[in-house]
Amino acid sequence: MKYIILGGNGFIGSYIVDILIEKGHEVTIFDRGTEKFRDSLSNVNYVYGNIDDHTLIKETFAEKDILIHCVSTTVPFTSNNNIEFDIESNLINSVKIFRIACEQNIKRIVYLSSGGAIYGEAEVIPITENSQTNPISSYGITKLAIEKYLAYFSSNYGIEYNIIRPSNPYGPRQNPFGNQGVISVFLGKVLRNESIEVWGDGEISKDYVFIEDLAESIYEASISEQTSQIFNIGSGTTISLNKIINTIKEVTEKDLLVNYYPTNKFDVQHFCLDIEKAEKILNFKPKVNLKHGISMTWEFVKSLK
Amino acid sequence: MKYIILGGNGFIGSYIVDILIEKGHEVTIFDRGTEKFRDSLSNVNYVYGNIDDHTLIKETFAEKDILIHCVSTTVPFTSNNNIEFDIESNLINSVKIFRIACEQNIKRIVYLSSGGAIYGEAEVIPITENSQTNPISSYGITKLAIEKYLAYFSSNYGIEYNIIRPSNPYGPRQNPFGNQGVISVFLGKVLRNESIEVWGDGEISKDYVFIEDLAESIYEASISEQTSQIFNIGSGTTISLNKIINTIKEVTEKDLLVNYYPTNKFDVQHFCLDIEKAEKILNFKPKVNLKHGISMTWEFVKSLK
Repeated sequence: MKYIILGGNGFIGSYIVDILIEKGHEVTIFDRGTEKFRDSLSNVNYVYGNIDDHTLIKETFAEKDILIHCVSTTVPFTSNNNIEFDIESNLINSVKIFRIACEQNIKRIVYLSSGGAIYGEAEVIPITENSQTNPISSYGITKLAIEKYLAYFSSNYGIEYNIIRPSNPYGPRQNPFGNQGVISVFLGKVLRNESIEVWGDGEISKDYVFIEDLAESIYEASISEQTSQIFNIGSGTTISLNKIINTIKEVTEKDLLVNYYPTNKFDVQHFCLDIEKAEKILNFKPKVNLKHGISMTWEFVKSLK
Repeated sequence: MKYIILGGNGFIGSYIVDILIEKGHEVTIFDRGTEKFRDSLSNVNYVYGNIDDHTLIKETFAEKDILIHCVSTTVPFTSNNNIEFDIESNLINSVKIFRIACEQNIKRIVYLSSGGAIYGEAEVIPITENSQTNPISSYGITKLAIEKYLAYFSSNYGIEYNIIRPSNPYGPRQNPFGNQGVISVFLGKVLRNESIEVWGDGEISKDYVFIEDLAESIYEASISEQTSQIFNIGSGTTISLNKIINTIKEVTEKDLLVNYYPTNKFDVQHFCLDIEKAEKILNFKPKVNLKHGISMTWEFVKSLK
């Protein structure tokens, strides 16, 4: 099959690309820049451009079968600083992308949404795909609206789709010096002997999924016989920040200075996804446990020294 | 209290204004034009402008207590023709309006959403406020996103809000020569001796609420002790198009030619709102039944001859 991966040079996209190549598919990456942490791959077609360059997108979509959309111009925290930009750059561009995909006869779209940002503080744990959606950031609101427009285009123009709502992905090639992904950011701090910042008492508990497990589920969603589905993807367990910090100490064998700050409002306090639907329909099964995942991530972070 | 009604010269807005004046409140209407079917009111402050004129909106919001937002630049059917316009003119402008309301220390926002457009085809009838939201038009998707942003601004800036999700409102002063509101449109056709168009077999059943009942609920939502709530507002019953046509024949004592066309995709086929929450919290009780409501609407439509 001919795949086009929007954001294929990003953290998540790059793992999807790895699987697609391994499975023998033809891969085109559309991204605004090169991969941050490894060289270009020889067996991939690269197209460089912005997601608002619709002429280039139209050309790139020609003759492709499956589109995987994992681009976001914002992260939850930054999205609230400029909501209008978030709506214009993510929501409006995604609508244009879906329309072009329909025009170019792409068969299926897999959209990378967000489990962490869409549900908000849940009344019932674990959260199923039918749980209430109360996003607490603009990032989550636009992702939810993008999901609804994808369903709209599918129902009106016949294009197939599946949606993935991941918990918090982590692993090698996630930027340890960026602003998203606590495990990678903490490991980056360890590497530089910097103190760690924790918002709240550290008992905030979330679901962390290893990047290879997430990428596998996205691939399965792209070939599944079931379509028009939303899938939660997570590890199936919750882990507190303090537990992560302890595991990092264990893995890295380093002492960590942790500074605790008041809770910020943009974060959900307790979060666990029900992954039964993905287990049943996509045969999803998380393979990498926290300690193993942190070890692999630490090996990567150390290599950046 | 000092009220500002965005879209106060529209069909729904004008009935809210009537109640507010009757209750002795100070009323400012912000609208792009005058009322279509009656003269300006002497005891109302009018401000004319577009909702993207944020300087004028900021001035108008000063010293006001309660904002009622019932402006939409689109209707469900037209919204799909230009989704980008729908997002820009409704969603982005509403975000800006909510931000200005917070800055100007408005205490509460009541937002007129849509029960008809937000839920989509329901799996379980009647539809409660916690039912799944599967909008089938851009109009419904942007309304849903506006609701989420309103909750976001409330949780981050402390402004109070309530949201009304009405079924299909009808009554005098709804434009019988427009493109929304089947009862009024049908009565307009009767007035002009034109045939009626029905999409489907006429057994499509929906919930129709008389405009005075709806306006009463919006007023109650603006003064209720309960906030951060979503309320379905409807008649509590469903009525088929054929039943409406028969009631119109009975009330107008005219013969009607009905042309049946294939079902269109932008319409939900069976629709009934559960209004128990509004009954309990807002003391909502629909007072006007279909025949009485159609009679009053017909008196209005006849007056346009």
